[in-house]
Amino acid sequence: MPVNLKLRPAIAVNGIELAPVSAGLKNDGSLDMLLVKLGEGCCTAGVFTKNTFCAAPVTVARAHLQASKGQVRALLVNSGNANAGTGKPGLDMARAHCAAVAQHLDIDSTQVLPFSTGVIGQLLPDDVMKAGIAQATAAFAEDWQAAARSIMTTDTEPKLTSRQCVVNGESVTVTGMAKGSGMIQPNMATMLAYLFTDASVAQTDLQALLEQAVDTSFNSITVDSDTSTNDACMLSATGTGTSIDRAHPDWAAFAATVSAVALDLAQGIVRDAEGATKFIQVNVAGGKNTADCKCVAYAIANSPLVKTAMFASDANVGRLLMAIGKAEVANLDPAGIRVSLGETCAFENGGIASGYTEEAGSALLAQPEITVNVELGAGDAKACVYTSDLSHDYVSINADYRS
Amino acid sequence: MPVNLKLRPAIAVNGIELAPVSAGLKNDGSLDMLLVKLGEGCCTAGVFTKNTFCAAPVTVARAHLQASKGQVRALLVNSGNANAGTGKPGLDMARAHCAAVAQHLDIDSTQVLPFSTGVIGQLLPDDVMKAGIAQATAAFAEDWQAAARSIMTTDTEPKLTSRQCVVNGESVTVTGMAKGSGMIQPNMATMLAYLFTDASVAQTDLQALLEQAVDTSFNSITVDSDTSTNDACMLSATGTGTSIDRAHPDWAAFAATVSAVALDLAQGIVRDAEGATKFIQVNVAGGKNTADCKCVAYAIANSPLVKTAMFASDANVGRLLMAIGKAEVANLDPAGIRVSLGETCAFENGGIASGYTEEAGSALLAQPEITVNVELGAGDAKACVYTSDLSHDYVSINADYRS
Repeated sequence: MPVNLKLRPAIAVNGIELAPVSAGLKNDGSLDMLLVKLGEGCCTAGVFTKNTFCAAPVTVARAHLQASKGQVRALLVNSGNANAGTGKPGLDMARAHCAAVAQHLDIDSTQVLPFSTGVIGQLLPDDVMKAGIAQATAAFAEDWQAAARSIMTTDTEPKLTSRQCVVNGESVTVTGMAKGSGMIQPNMATMLAYLFTDASVAQTDLQALLEQAVDTSFNSITVDSDTSTNDACMLSATGTGTSIDRAHPDWAAFAATVSAVALDLAQGIVRDAEGATKFIQVNVAGGKNTADCKCVAYAIANSPLVKTAMFASDANVGRLLMAIGKAEVANLDPAGIRVSLGETCAFENGGIASGYTEEAGSALLAQPEITVNVELGAGDAKACVYTSDLSHDYVSINADYRS
Repeated sequence: MPVNLKLRPAIAVNGIELAPVSAGLKNDGSLDMLLVKLGEGCCTAGVFTKNTFCAAPVTVARAHLQASKGQVRALLVNSGNANAGTGKPGLDMARAHCAAVAQHLDIDSTQVLPFSTGVIGQLLPDDVMKAGIAQATAAFAEDWQAAARSIMTTDTEPKLTSRQCVVNGESVTVTGMAKGSGMIQPNMATMLAYLFTDASVAQTDLQALLEQAVDTSFNSITVDSDTSTNDACMLSATGTGTSIDRAHPDWAAFAATVSAVALDLAQGIVRDAEGATKFIQVNVAGGKNTADCKCVAYAIANSPLVKTAMFASDANVGRLLMAIGKAEVANLDPAGIRVSLGETCAFENGGIASGYTEEAGSALLAQPEITVNVELGAGDAKACVYTSDLSHDYVSINADYRS
């Protein structure tokens, strides 16, 4: 059961057509392939995993995005098989599937970006993929819910949301979908997220906008500290609506809208994390720089002992201190560090805060939404990381799971 | 149940007297305090945790070791309470307990080193400690098993072992004990380990010897990636036996014996790790330098997805590739990387190895002792890290435990 996963209703984006199909990659016959057709003039930006063993589709998508200068016309996504650790045969197959889509849609194969998610180390079934592609190219529609569902693996719910803002006096829509539930500590991107807007934006501006939005959303979450081989986050601007660039007076509002959609989806991934029973926000302030703050926040968010204490609603402040203290941040003074659970101060001046009781702490940790606030007392920088707890179900899901 | 935890019989070390007592710090009345008396002329070296929130006893032990120039005469260890995150009252108490021991034994208080392990963030009960100290100073004996038991917290078995070597034609004994089961990824030392030898060694040589031994033992293990606030590893040379220094022809044999005792104890901690069902050795070779190899080995050993796959005996090579790929090592070429389970090659030349089957892999992972061999193909350096799997019992122990 996801933790308070309530996203906004999806709003269709002009210039986007969707074809989610059951190609037969998943054993249970559920949706497992999505073909997204982007209208002519659409511009796309992307960020990809930094994992050394990045999957074949990541290698191909990165090359095609560059070769087409962002003039991408189709996104081909499959779930159930990651096409990672598959060497040259995997690369050849990813390229062949792009070519198949390009032939059906009469575009260049570098205008097709492939994405895969699922089990690592197995070749895709070529016939199944090609039959699915043929089926998808004849089935374009606007079913956003089915599209978000077709890219899921261990997700229990689709992650799909929309926001709007006003640019040049006109309404602009940003709609995004994402999948991901485990193997989540994205490095530059996350486990498949697709954002679409009807605004008209040049590619350099679009790329900068995406990188900024990803930094505070997908690059600020962790479920299990593990960085996937297949992470990718794409932002496509169809240009069917009004134009905007980074010098425009409405740019800040537009950028905030894109960031908010990215954050909704990133939080959605954590809320639907494998085995999650709590949604935990770790705020670290008072650091010398953002990197120090993020390092402390991740040390807390990734600590198995912190995460099991959160699962147990056990106000074990000692584990929080341990995690802060092990972070590789130079010259932290324990006497200047303050740790609060929500608004309740638990540790300050080098010792447990006077008036703090474990009963009060445990009551706060028994809630499904937990905020940990850490003040480092060393500067003005801050950072925020979102995570889930570590439960028996996390072990069950990952000890038993094979899609 | 520990995984194949079979250590050698303990051999008493001349010049060491032990007083394990039940002071009343643990609720169940079991042994919870150990006073070790070191004979006159004994020389001691030590390494301590690098956690910023290092415990009060760590701060005091480090200062006393320096002030006494290694001429330590007593080690005072308590379990059940870590005296960490306790501010100035905690420091005052650690110093007062050293003074109490010093008064009983008629030595200087800087010749007493304090150590604590257990719950973080609670003050020690002063009366209980002082009564325990009085009891211990009247109870010195040579019960090494009881001593190793008195420092345990979540350990299920004591960790105690001995080895001997020949120096100057005489037999030299090295006997060590350790405790630790969770919050284990030591940084410069581990959760309380005490090594004793009857050799006569100068303090600078002893410190160098200890640091070298710790590097390949306690600093090469991880249970849950969490670095304790109370880690300490001490090596005391009583000097009742023959003399040795680093220029001596028998130094290499002596150093190898000390390292072997440290490694036995470090592996013992992993074998008795919280919830462990498997003992896993990760060998990484072919790196540009040792740091790169250790980085990759820890990325594998700390990955929750690798650890749950090991628990499930699931030969999910993809998770190993993911973990190798997320390690922050520059310029790794996936095509040059080779991954084997034991002697069975699972991945090479960028893809799953020909002839490898999941059935063969799963049969290897079903054994209680697992070796993962990674060849990076980038140089001649190597490193080895020992770890355990991630089981339901790890979650249960850490979601429910309060001593």
